[in-house]
Amino acid sequence: MMENPALCMPFGVDIDLIKGAMGDPDRVIVRKASNMIGMYADEAALSRLIEHGDPVHYEVFEKAIPDVEGHLIICISKLYPGKVGEEYYMTKGHYHMVAGTAEIYLGVAGQGFMLMKTSDGKCVAEPIRHGRMVYVPPYWAHRSINTDDVPLVSFCVYPGGAGHNYGDIEKEGFPKRIFNKHGVPVTQ
Amino acid sequence: MMENPALCMPFGVDIDLIKGAMGDPDRVIVRKASNMIGMYADEAALSRLIEHGDPVHYEVFEKAIPDVEGHLIICISKLYPGKVGEEYYMTKGHYHMVAGTAEIYLGVAGQGFMLMKTSDGKCVAEPIRHGRMVYVPPYWAHRSINTDDVPLVSFCVYPGGAGHNYGDIEKEGFPKRIFNKHGVPVTQ
Repeated sequence: MMENPALCMPFGVDIDLIKGAMGDPDRVIVRKASNMIGMYADEAALSRLIEHGDPVHYEVFEKAIPDVEGHLIICISKLYPGKVGEEYYMTKGHYHMVAGTAEIYLGVAGQGFMLMKTSDGKCVAEPIRHGRMVYVPPYWAHRSINTDDVPLVSFCVYPGGAGHNYGDIEKEGFPKRIFNKHGVPVTQ
Repeated sequence: MMENPALCMPFGVDIDLIKGAMGDPDRVIVRKASNMIGMYADEAALSRLIEHGDPVHYEVFEKAIPDVEGHLIICISKLYPGKVGEEYYMTKGHYHMVAGTAEIYLGVAGQGFMLMKTSDGKCVAEPIRHGRMVYVPPYWAHRSINTDDVPLVSFCVYPGGAGHNYGDIEKEGFPKRIFNKHGVPVTQ
């Protein structure tokens, strides 16, 4: 049966449920400030950040699982704390290529929001933190936002073959942003 | 868009990452000793257990999520500690009705094993405990076994529409069992 490349053997992986670290990831995706051009309200602030060291915004730690229907892709998303102008660090956000597929984010460390939107204008921000899971239903684009002083770490699961569609969010953006106003997260 | 019953709004749910409790479950499935007839090696010991109070073996706590393709079903599985003769408490075990679908189990509390098998005779036992996730690939039947003195609690995710096939495991059983031999788990 294992001759089929869509199949794999069972395995275990350590997930630190306090810090959120994944033991022995097979792949790490790194997104820096320079990968976020066009995403923040204050473009000049982002440019200054890129010029001053281009800090890492977030990392995604993955296990090698066949990316085809029937499998479940797991990852750890680690979004660093920081602000671009008054806007909290966030992920690019994406729909799935197969738009009708869900994703779950189990908050492990830090706190913030999962900002979600549909292409027809609905928008919801759900709090996420250690011990709070957010369900992103099929057809909802989603972006993590870190409102804390420590990394926001989530354990994520989505269907194999779902894929990522970043292009539509680059064009559409989200209807809401979350800013730090005098030390408090404010949604605008 | 929400007129389609396959769709739902985003939501959050509390998952206690120490005890494994789910906040506000929509459904609880309870399996007692009397639901486990035919599963254990020592049938007489199971009969005595059923006569003496028919204790709960395990509970599954679920959220109401549309059980159709594209969604992800989440639950908490809570398997109580105990033995039937020398054999540790376990779940019935199942394939998925759509056999080519995976499941993930993130161990939150207690410890034990995820026993997995294919219909063509492969069998693997992966340890599971707080902070250890087990990947059950497509086509693998799976059963939890609690080798601890406290409940074995896991956070589980599987694809909507996957369904449960208990019938084949009732007929086939698993090629291995895990017994307590002088206080130590032994696989036979």
